[in-house]
Amino acid sequence: MDARRVGENYQPVMRAEEVNTFLRDVFPQACGGEPPDYRALEVWPGGCLVRLEAGFRHLRPGDTVSGPSLFALADIGGYVCALSHIGPEALAVTTNLNINFMRKAPAGTVDAHCRILKLGKRLMIFEAELTAGEASGIVAHATGTYSIPPVSGSGKP
Amino acid sequence: MDARRVGENYQPVMRAEEVNTFLRDVFPQACGGEPPDYRALEVWPGGCLVRLEAGFRHLRPGDTVSGPSLFALADIGGYVCALSHIGPEALAVTTNLNINFMRKAPAGTVDAHCRILKLGKRLMIFEAELTAGEASGIVAHATGTYSIPPVSGSGKP
Amino acid sequence: MDARRVGENYQPVMRAEEVNTFLRDVFPQACGGEPPDYRALEVWPGGCLVRLEAGFRHLRPGDTVSGPSLFALADIGGYVCALSHIGPEALAVTTNLNINFMRKAPAGTVDAHCRILKLGKRLMIFEAELTAGEASGIVAHATGTYSIPPVSGSGKP
Amino acid sequence: MDARRVGENYQPVMRAEEVNTFLRDVFPQACGGEPPDYRALEVWPGGCLVRLEAGFRHLRPGDTVSGPSLFALADIGGYVCALSHIGPEALAVTTNLNINFMRKAPAGTVDAHCRILKLGKRLMIFEAELTAGEASGIVAHATGTYSIPPVSGSGKP
Repeated sequence: MDARRVGENYQPVMRAEEVNTFLRDVFPQACGGEPPDYRALEVWPGGCLVRLEAGFRHLRPGDTVSGPSLFALADIGGYVCALSHIGPEALAVTTNLNINFMRKAPAGTVDAHCRILKLGKRLMIFEAELTAGEASGIVAHATGTYSIPPVSGSGKP
Repeated sequence: MDARRVGENYQPVMRAEEVNTFLRDVFPQACGGEPPDYRALEVWPGGCLVRLEAGFRHLRPGDTVSGPSLFALADIGGYVCALSHIGPEALAVTTNLNINFMRKAPAGTVDAHCRILKLGKRLMIFEAELTAGEASGIVAHATGTYSIPPVSGSGKP
Repeated sequence: MDARRVGENYQPVMRAEEVNTFLRDVFPQACGGEPPDYRALEVWPGGCLVRLEAGFRHLRPGDTVSGPSLFALADIGGYVCALSHIGPEALAVTTNLNINFMRKAPAGTVDAHCRILKLGKRLMIFEAELTAGEASGIVAHATGTYSIPPVSGSGKP
Repeated sequence: MDARRVGENYQPVMRAEEVNTFLRDVFPQACGGEPPDYRALEVWPGGCLVRLEAGFRHLRPGDTVSGPSLFALADIGGYVCALSHIGPEALAVTTNLNINFMRKAPAGTVDAHCRILKLGKRLMIFEAELTAGEASGIVAHATGTYSIPPVSGSGKP
């Protein structure tokens, strides 16, 4: 295991299955199918692994996965980082995402290995490395920021 | 007219209608409907205006336009900048896109006002300002880079 | 005047001179000389103009202004946007800055035209367009985010 | 050793000492002192380690390292990645750099662990993770793009 996967005392409060149940409800367009287009495979302290099963709607000419579909995977990876480590009370929103595209991603499975770079009270910063194809080469790399709203005193979202 | 819309001797070689015909062919998933989800409204020297008609598939809970849909609009805006000023011979590809989300975009029309910041032989850098809603407030802002492949000597793409 | 310079009901609370006095105190290395390397020229609702007088220490081979010096100008532009519109009580800090370099900046004056894209309670997002040379061509473009700490209840920082 | 440090068949053509001699010549302001403010410590296939010894000129109030100084370290890290893997014939230039600031860096040593994400004929994309302080915590993370000019046929730069 990559030593960098061990976060700085980060401790998830939700497992991958709980995350997927939650995603199915809030993002039915992207995560509601069976199997869902986007889903969490694994959650660990300080990070997670999310997967896109790229079908026709995610492709560009030449049967490569589209930029917006890769963006969505990185964005969901950041959301899963926040959700699994904070819990579903406070719905985080993306404020910034920067993505570099390195190689074409062939149709099929795309994985995003995500890591929390900082989890503060108000902001979470993460990075996502996207791999695809037989050699699991890097197809894209993203960093982003989620804003974490304050939890209301009543405990209800 | 904003003086900054006048590019540095930039001259488009395709009109908005020609751009849309081309987009319909190469991106049938995003630009093939009638009317298309994404299309070019106007092309001018050094920039363009592209529009998303956000329907159910582009929405998030609360009837706001999803991040990936706004990313796609900015990305298509950059593509239209490159396509309209270079022509369809060389197919540009996104290498970097950075997007900041400012406010929620309500369901409906989202416009991206795009401007070429640099059009070199190998790279095009652009910015896109996304507006939506009754007050046409800024909902997101993006900058990005397209890599422009060399045109083959034979004149065929 | 560019209509986009008019912010959404933004109202500065400090003038350029007050800003410069403040900068001189907190950033003596960058803003303490006479004249200072970096200074505010103008503040208006929703934006500002800041200037770098690039001397030897800011140059790279070929007498062009270095990347870090241009980064610093954009960063100070964002800081002046926040400072002039919030006041000196809460010291904002940069959380993200993305910069694209378009052309070499010749030695001499570099200006950054800065615009607030969003001024929220916790975050300010801005863009900066850097121009230099006789033709005032665009040499770089940046967008960034400042985190705004909560003001303490007592009114004292 | 982190498996991710092993690049995809990347092979450096210069050692850290050769890199530093070159940096001393081309960036005398930043790399010319004894010891230099910025220098390469190590070069390996697909990456490098560069270091800033932060003195007074690199500090902000509170004795923390300034944003531009951290930007410069990440930028030099990318430059060393390109230089050490391509050689000194073609002088690469930064076209984009995105940096997230996570924590304050105390005065003293700051290290940037840099990794090539893609080394193409025309572009190199890299990431840099900056650590500082006793616990070597992450203080900033950057990704960037260098444009690689074509080498002239004569073999002279």
